[in-house]
Amino acid sequence: MGDVSNDLSRRERRKREVRDRIMRAAMKRFIRQGFDDTRVDEIAQDADVAQKTFFNYFPTKQDLFHQLAEERIDELQEILEEERSGAGSTRQKLEHCFVRLSELLEERGLLARDLILEAMRARPPGMTGEDITKLHTAFGAILRDGQVRGDVRTDHPIEFLTEMVVGGFGAVMNNWVNIRDYPVKDRLAQTAAFLGEAISPKGAGRKGQP
Amino acid sequence: MGDVSNDLSRRERRKREVRDRIMRAAMKRFIRQGFDDTRVDEIAQDADVAQKTFFNYFPTKQDLFHQLAEERIDELQEILEEERSGAGSTRQKLEHCFVRLSELLEERGLLARDLILEAMRARPPGMTGEDITKLHTAFGAILRDGQVRGDVRTDHPIEFLTEMVVGGFGAVMNNWVNIRDYPVKDRLAQTAAFLGEAISPKGAGRKGQP
Repeated sequence: MGDVSNDLSRRERRKREVRDRIMRAAMKRFIRQGFDDTRVDEIAQDADVAQKTFFNYFPTKQDLFHQLAEERIDELQEILEEERSGAGSTRQKLEHCFVRLSELLEERGLLARDLILEAMRARPPGMTGEDITKLHTAFGAILRDGQVRGDVRTDHPIEFLTEMVVGGFGAVMNNWVNIRDYPVKDRLAQTAAFLGEAISPKGAGRKGQP
Repeated sequence: MGDVSNDLSRRERRKREVRDRIMRAAMKRFIRQGFDDTRVDEIAQDADVAQKTFFNYFPTKQDLFHQLAEERIDELQEILEEERSGAGSTRQKLEHCFVRLSELLEERGLLARDLILEAMRARPPGMTGEDITKLHTAFGAILRDGQVRGDVRTDHPIEFLTEMVVGGFGAVMNNWVNIRDYPVKDRLAQTAAFLGEAISPKGAGRKGQP
């Protein structure tokens, strides 16, 4: 009996390891070449598995992409939760979140662009669906904390303020995937400053003031 | 010679008239039934033309839809230009624009929803492309006027402020097509108030103050 369960867990571990290797290989290719220009045989070769093995794990390249997308959303959520429990005012947290998001975009290259394009083309499109609800929830938590400690305005409900923050982020992402040479890092920083100020309580002053 | 040109213009007028009739019939159906649930034979019947005639004017239902979409964008642009030359502060103009846009959405029913879904799924997706550039340009003109007369902040470039305004509008549209019973009219009004304040000069005060 002990041997059987050992065999099982060994097999499970082995499957998990192959799956991770394929995912990592795919991610590297997508970052450099983008989703469309990456072929399954390239991923299989990089991951050192037969194409047949690839298809045992992922029926299509699209399936793999969706798994990867889900992981990236979880990663985004973790970043926002980390920032939430960090130091500083809500405005600073928001600015810091946007900086980290823009670093992530840079690091992830074409993959990031493809993920955003894909999110926009999904049915239903855009900023809802389970994934983007996670983003709303994470930003919303930061803003709610801010209302409690008094550096986020209370004359609008959190739900609405969150919509504006995610909307500003979405507008920049949208322009980034569509406009050549769009200064995404600068614009994200500018957007964070603008929104950080707009969500502050009445009379809290503008940029540069405490 | 005179007869020939008369014949030509008569034929042109006749073509124009049939085309308009088909467009009007289609628009009514799309408003009530949505794009997907409207059949070409229904449009042809409403417009009192043979199906063959329909296809002479529009090779596919999709082609008709895109013509209609283009007209709607031009209409939107006209509304924004009208508001631009109207009375009131930039903040009031913005609020008035958003109210008119939400009335238009209501009037247009399922057609409006389908147009927005289509814009989001287009390649490239979302808020760029020639059509949305028109929207940017029209909102941008209102904001630029405001900078000149002093009721729009000058510490951010117009291009960026426009991005935030169109982004806020886009976020609400996005939620409206995705979330059941989304209070789109209320949210648009709230968004206009929020953004109207956020684009005002430093120290101009919040809602309710001049």
